[in-house]
Amino acid sequence: MQSLRDILNRIATGETSPEQALAFSAARIAQREPAIQAFASQPETLVPGQGPLAGIACGVKDIIDTADLPTGMGSSIYEGWRPRADAPIVMALKGAGATVAGKTHTTAFAFLDPAPTHNPHDPTASPGGSSAGSAAAVAAGMIPLAIGTQTGGSVIRPAAYCGVAAIKPSYALLPTIGVKPFSWSLDTLGLMAARADDLGLALAAITGRAALDAPAASLAGLRIGIHHQPYAGAPEPASAAALQRFEELAAQAGAALVPHAGSVALAEAYQAHGPLQDWEATQALAWEYAHRREALPPKLRAYLDAARATTPAQYDEARRLSRRGRDAARSFFAEVDVVVTYAAPGEAPDTMNSTGDSRFNRLWTLLGVPCLTVPLMRGPRGLPATVQIMAGFGRDEHVIAVAKALESHVSAGV
Amino acid sequence: MQSLRDILNRIATGETSPEQALAFSAARIAQREPAIQAFASQPETLVPGQGPLAGIACGVKDIIDTADLPTGMGSSIYEGWRPRADAPIVMALKGAGATVAGKTHTTAFAFLDPAPTHNPHDPTASPGGSSAGSAAAVAAGMIPLAIGTQTGGSVIRPAAYCGVAAIKPSYALLPTIGVKPFSWSLDTLGLMAARADDLGLALAAITGRAALDAPAASLAGLRIGIHHQPYAGAPEPASAAALQRFEELAAQAGAALVPHAGSVALAEAYQAHGPLQDWEATQALAWEYAHRREALPPKLRAYLDAARATTPAQYDEARRLSRRGRDAARSFFAEVDVVVTYAAPGEAPDTMNSTGDSRFNRLWTLLGVPCLTVPLMRGPRGLPATVQIMAGFGRDEHVIAVAKALESHVSAGV
Repeated sequence: MQSLRDILNRIATGETSPEQALAFSAARIAQREPAIQAFASQPETLVPGQGPLAGIACGVKDIIDTADLPTGMGSSIYEGWRPRADAPIVMALKGAGATVAGKTHTTAFAFLDPAPTHNPHDPTASPGGSSAGSAAAVAAGMIPLAIGTQTGGSVIRPAAYCGVAAIKPSYALLPTIGVKPFSWSLDTLGLMAARADDLGLALAAITGRAALDAPAASLAGLRIGIHHQPYAGAPEPASAAALQRFEELAAQAGAALVPHAGSVALAEAYQAHGPLQDWEATQALAWEYAHRREALPPKLRAYLDAARATTPAQYDEARRLSRRGRDAARSFFAEVDVVVTYAAPGEAPDTMNSTGDSRFNRLWTLLGVPCLTVPLMRGPRGLPATVQIMAGFGRDEHVIAVAKALESHVSAGV
Repeated sequence: MQSLRDILNRIATGETSPEQALAFSAARIAQREPAIQAFASQPETLVPGQGPLAGIACGVKDIIDTADLPTGMGSSIYEGWRPRADAPIVMALKGAGATVAGKTHTTAFAFLDPAPTHNPHDPTASPGGSSAGSAAAVAAGMIPLAIGTQTGGSVIRPAAYCGVAAIKPSYALLPTIGVKPFSWSLDTLGLMAARADDLGLALAAITGRAALDAPAASLAGLRIGIHHQPYAGAPEPASAAALQRFEELAAQAGAALVPHAGSVALAEAYQAHGPLQDWEATQALAWEYAHRREALPPKLRAYLDAARATTPAQYDEARRLSRRGRDAARSFFAEVDVVVTYAAPGEAPDTMNSTGDSRFNRLWTLLGVPCLTVPLMRGPRGLPATVQIMAGFGRDEHVIAVAKALESHVSAGV
């Protein structure tokens, strides 16, 4: 994979130039794209911008508006669609000097019908979804940075399946304006890169918040809550082993591991994700459903057929449970420094007909808390398996700092 | 003015038909539009839909996406712009049976540069902004319902200046998807109609929440907090007189009037509206500012020139003060049944070069609480002057019920 920090360091020392860094990404794309199919559209040339990310090629999920490239939403309904303006996240990327290297394949409207993208670790396995192209493009070493979105688990899950680092920051840290909505209470933009260290650098540059490029924490003495999400069912052996491996690494590094149970309020908030998303999705896609239903892919069509039965009363109750869950999350996260849990049920599904399952991601998306995953190990099928690190709302620099510490222990082979 | 409830009652009794009701609105538009200039675009014919609002012609502010009519944002940058899909609020209107009678003039991007619309009560006075066309079209009796948006005071203020009823519901009760954002933490959709009674009926039909069509409350025994917003400066005599008139009416009806002071947390939240909006507006209009700055109107351009100096730290502090203000609002609103305050500083400005001032509206937009205004009296210049009624977050049916009670006392000439 291409590390964003490494590229910028080499540019800083004169070892390479922004133009050369972009040319390298372009060459990697030309080489790998035919097999991976990560990109829905690409510009003719990559021109460096001005700013801290000059020379960084970035993939942008194809539900995010761009004025210079089509925004197809993964659907024939928007084929060739050209928004008038770039979304603020795209302007922020360009403002930081990054170059949009292409729009990355998304499942249709970021739901469950698979994108054409292949998992770089196994061409017959799923790359996950919905931010499939973003995760695969980074994993295949085509680009050092990509933008995705998560409503259930659409950033963390494909990152885990493809073996890249990713952060779903606190809700609304990155504005979702100009991003095709699915469920506005949940939709969150996220970043993918080679390492947590790269994520911190990129997030700091994009948001103008230097503190997000946090130094690695010390694991020694850190209180880490280990949470199994019993309300979300049991994990597969690959993810159980990943959490076990994390615990070994953290314990060796001197962290205090605390078994961390949830609460009724959190379990109820987990259940509320369903009706919350159902009602909002029927609103968000009301025009497409009413006027282009036959053009919707089968999983999304069946989902909306069922979701429209959700009543305002069910939705209002789900919003109430969400608010209660967010209150409960304050004490849940206050008791430890970070919480660690499964990033996904297991390795990537061994089929391209499924994008996998977001059940270990949904609650945290609803709570709006920062989630970060880094590659940790391989599962029995040889595909990536890992955990995610979480903290209280707004403590994004904290998960970055802890993930960087974990990363150094993993790469040191501890 | 055309009352939505009256129209629907006449349709129910067979006195008129949805087609005839729409034809009446079309005739009124043809008659009044040349002088008022409320509409940016109109469909060729008005065809009734199916549902409780069949026969109701509705104006839609021109920053709200429509697939069948251009969405010009009040700016040459979006002249003739055709979104692919209707915004969910437009789908909800149509789903309830209403007919879009046209896109109503907005100030450019819903900021302060005036729209071409005239105040129906005085052609040389401001109709207010930014939802100028929506308020004027209802006030001129062209249509019985219109949709606007409020980021500072852009629903309540033009309604007060034009002498129509309007509700800015609780934040996110109406989804703002497909509405051009200005400040996503603040942007709220609202309705305008002849009376509060019409607003309740329409809001219930659009949202599928029958309870919003609330019966009139009894003012006798109601505890009404009277709040002067000292942190927002002094009102003009017209608004001071309107609040005084409200107090007389409410006291005569047996309500208990409670002088209701704010708190430091609320005053600080009021101050936070500025940096919150400044930072978000620079993000929301980043593409337009970077690529079409010279096409922006002067007030908006100067505003963005200054607003871009806002730092993430100032924004984060404003968000913190907003959250604290929302906490403080819970007890502020819990102590009384409703709170009543000025709807605007005074009568409409006697110039079309200003859309007036939102200083008595901003805090409530930021807090996300429901605000409702109904016509009350005339000021010294013969233009409407009135108050707004507010309640805690999510208590929309409560402000509707109280406003309906007030309305019956006003029309009874008590």
